[in-house]
Amino acid sequence: MSASLQIFLCIALLILAAKLCGAAMARIGLPLVLGELLAGVLLGPTFINIWRFQWFSVSGPARVSVVAVFKVLADIGVVLLMFLAGLETDVDMMRSAVAPAFWAATGGVILPMVGGAVLAHAAGYSWQHAIFIGTILTATSVTITAQTLMNLKQLQSKAGSTILGAAVIDDVLGLIVLSVVIALAPSFAHSGAASWRGLAVTLGRMVLCLALLGFVGPPFVRWVFRRAERLHGSHTEVSAALVIAFLFAFQAEWFGGMAAITGSYLAGLFVAGTPAHRCVLDDIQPMINSFFGPLFFVSIGLEVDILQLSGHVEFFVALLLVAIVGKIIGCGLGSRFTGFSWRESLIVGVGMIPRGEVGLITASLGFAAGVVTRDVYVQVVVVVLLSTLITPGLLCFAFPRSSLAGEVLSSGAMELQRLDTAVDKMADA
Amino acid sequence: MSASLQIFLCIALLILAAKLCGAAMARIGLPLVLGELLAGVLLGPTFINIWRFQWFSVSGPARVSVVAVFKVLADIGVVLLMFLAGLETDVDMMRSAVAPAFWAATGGVILPMVGGAVLAHAAGYSWQHAIFIGTILTATSVTITAQTLMNLKQLQSKAGSTILGAAVIDDVLGLIVLSVVIALAPSFAHSGAASWRGLAVTLGRMVLCLALLGFVGPPFVRWVFRRAERLHGSHTEVSAALVIAFLFAFQAEWFGGMAAITGSYLAGLFVAGTPAHRCVLDDIQPMINSFFGPLFFVSIGLEVDILQLSGHVEFFVALLLVAIVGKIIGCGLGSRFTGFSWRESLIVGVGMIPRGEVGLITASLGFAAGVVTRDVYVQVVVVVLLSTLITPGLLCFAFPRSSLAGEVLSSGAMELQRLDTAVDKMADA
Repeated sequence: MSASLQIFLCIALLILAAKLCGAAMARIGLPLVLGELLAGVLLGPTFINIWRFQWFSVSGPARVSVVAVFKVLADIGVVLLMFLAGLETDVDMMRSAVAPAFWAATGGVILPMVGGAVLAHAAGYSWQHAIFIGTILTATSVTITAQTLMNLKQLQSKAGSTILGAAVIDDVLGLIVLSVVIALAPSFAHSGAASWRGLAVTLGRMVLCLALLGFVGPPFVRWVFRRAERLHGSHTEVSAALVIAFLFAFQAEWFGGMAAITGSYLAGLFVAGTPAHRCVLDDIQPMINSFFGPLFFVSIGLEVDILQLSGHVEFFVALLLVAIVGKIIGCGLGSRFTGFSWRESLIVGVGMIPRGEVGLITASLGFAAGVVTRDVYVQVVVVVLLSTLITPGLLCFAFPRSSLAGEVLSSGAMELQRLDTAVDKMADA
Repeated sequence: MSASLQIFLCIALLILAAKLCGAAMARIGLPLVLGELLAGVLLGPTFINIWRFQWFSVSGPARVSVVAVFKVLADIGVVLLMFLAGLETDVDMMRSAVAPAFWAATGGVILPMVGGAVLAHAAGYSWQHAIFIGTILTATSVTITAQTLMNLKQLQSKAGSTILGAAVIDDVLGLIVLSVVIALAPSFAHSGAASWRGLAVTLGRMVLCLALLGFVGPPFVRWVFRRAERLHGSHTEVSAALVIAFLFAFQAEWFGGMAAITGSYLAGLFVAGTPAHRCVLDDIQPMINSFFGPLFFVSIGLEVDILQLSGHVEFFVALLLVAIVGKIIGCGLGSRFTGFSWRESLIVGVGMIPRGEVGLITASLGFAAGVVTRDVYVQVVVVVLLSTLITPGLLCFAFPRSSLAGEVLSSGAMELQRLDTAVDKMADA
């Protein structure tokens, strides 16, 4: 079987599994992403282990491994997902809720990072590895937080919009920390603290690249879209957006030595400021939600071998506690500092627990670069899964009863209406 | 540089080149697809030869060749393009104009096929190779024909709708011929006419597969979409459509021994008959037009080395003449047979000249399977390019002056309005 034929089968199976598991999770009120991750875990080495099937073994004259090609597809997916995250960032809201969101985010980055690093170092990892493990614990996912808040009908509350703003700032902070850590990683790994010159060059390139992207980026993107919309052809705006996303991603990693996703996230932010914003968003969402997104989330799950958790249970439990308590205390204190009540601060802290795309991407980058070993990688991915899993329940506890009564009623009413529609459809058929 | 990073750069460059060349062609009234093909030719071995750059050389621990990965991306593109072609097929129009369209299509398949095969055999190719070369010359492109007719504002004329219907039937006939030829190819190649048993098994599998797809396919697709629309999640319909397209493509090639595109074309046809048709079409078009389509068309152009035409000029010119004259006479006689005037028949014949996606896909399948040598491949791709290039001009000659006067005026008015809008925009800026 040719590599292409193998990939056709692989795409069909993985998208099917992702969407079915996603729907199953959504049905019981949990985020879709969690289901797509679990689909990967199910198909991965712990249970089914699809790559062992003869259908996916290397064959044909080209001798291209379907696993390698699939990894590239997943990497294209990451770039597009982070581009979408940038595109969906509400820059205005970010500005208005900036003070409480900023302090909540900062607290929620520092505490898990320091806690994770200290814990990992105490467990015997080198400082470089320990700091990277801490970094993975910093990033809250906008997607998962927003979905949880929507489930609870609290998206527009004071705590809700602070959580959303903080999640965005958190993503940006997380990316900056990640970029610095990755940029510094080679100097750390190969020459220790001795090569100050190498470190300066690395940092200089990163700053230059960020400055270039930050100052030249926005006018460049606006210029491209002014040209693109006058260009003959179909969907030229989306094409322009894709070209910019991949070019920025390439440039961030190749020239700046940062993560490629930093580039595509910035590309998304800049495109969000152009008039083509709406059109690009509408056209690019189906592509990501139906194809590249599921493939990426399944690919993360596929890397996880839960059996490897055994023998590291104490470290794993400690890591999970740092991830949860670090966010609750860090974000909570941050919002309390700007005048929130204790309960509101608790809500913000709990709402910031779920890790998501950025954490997973960070972990997989570290794994690919060899900064994170396979067993730490597995533990971190399971921590991300669990942090997502517990948040909806914890948030229900954190919100005052009264504000949730309406939610429970309205969700009950929705469920009734859903059943009603289903019965109607069955009657029609 | 990792394979993923190379692919990011490759995607950005190729989409950019495709869209710019497409827009340039559209500006002078030629089909976009032609520009995307030419972009590939420009970047290919004849001129720039991008794969020779050090940026795209194999590196990294995974040792995945960026060229191999890019080929898989292009193959995913073909499956999606043919799925889209199926999805856009107007089954009702196909039924109403069925008689003239059927005869025009049949004439236009038989003449170029027989002419091409006889010519190739006379030039010294084996009958197997000769028949395949004939097969490549059969398929008219719906896309290019429709675009040319729209340019000429003749899409709704009697000749226009016959051309469109015939182009669809032509695609189906071409796919059937292609499937038969590919299904028979291994028996031909390895064991000659001796293995009648192998031939019977091959044909049996193909018929079984087509019967399975044809009878079980439509109710299966309807069942899937009834389920998908009730599934929790975003863009579940598009995901369902993608799963079906790739599953059918896999099934057609793996079980039926046919071309994978036959499967995805049928998947598109069946999805077109479901209520989700519009939604899938809207969501899948941006993905194909902005990403997979350009990558596929550029990949075709990238294979072409025009320098290899030298030394085969007579054969090439003869092939081109067969491709053009075969369609004009074949389709023309077919429509004359159902009562069209000579001029109308000429218009139908000329309108059917442009080869397109299916021809290119057929050629690249034959090339990959070793049924077509590289120099024949190059000649055929150039024939496809030229057939597309000359059609708009020939059609202008074929249509009576009076019916085109309005077109020229209205296109002039449109151009004026475009300039006007551009000036307004510049004034705003």
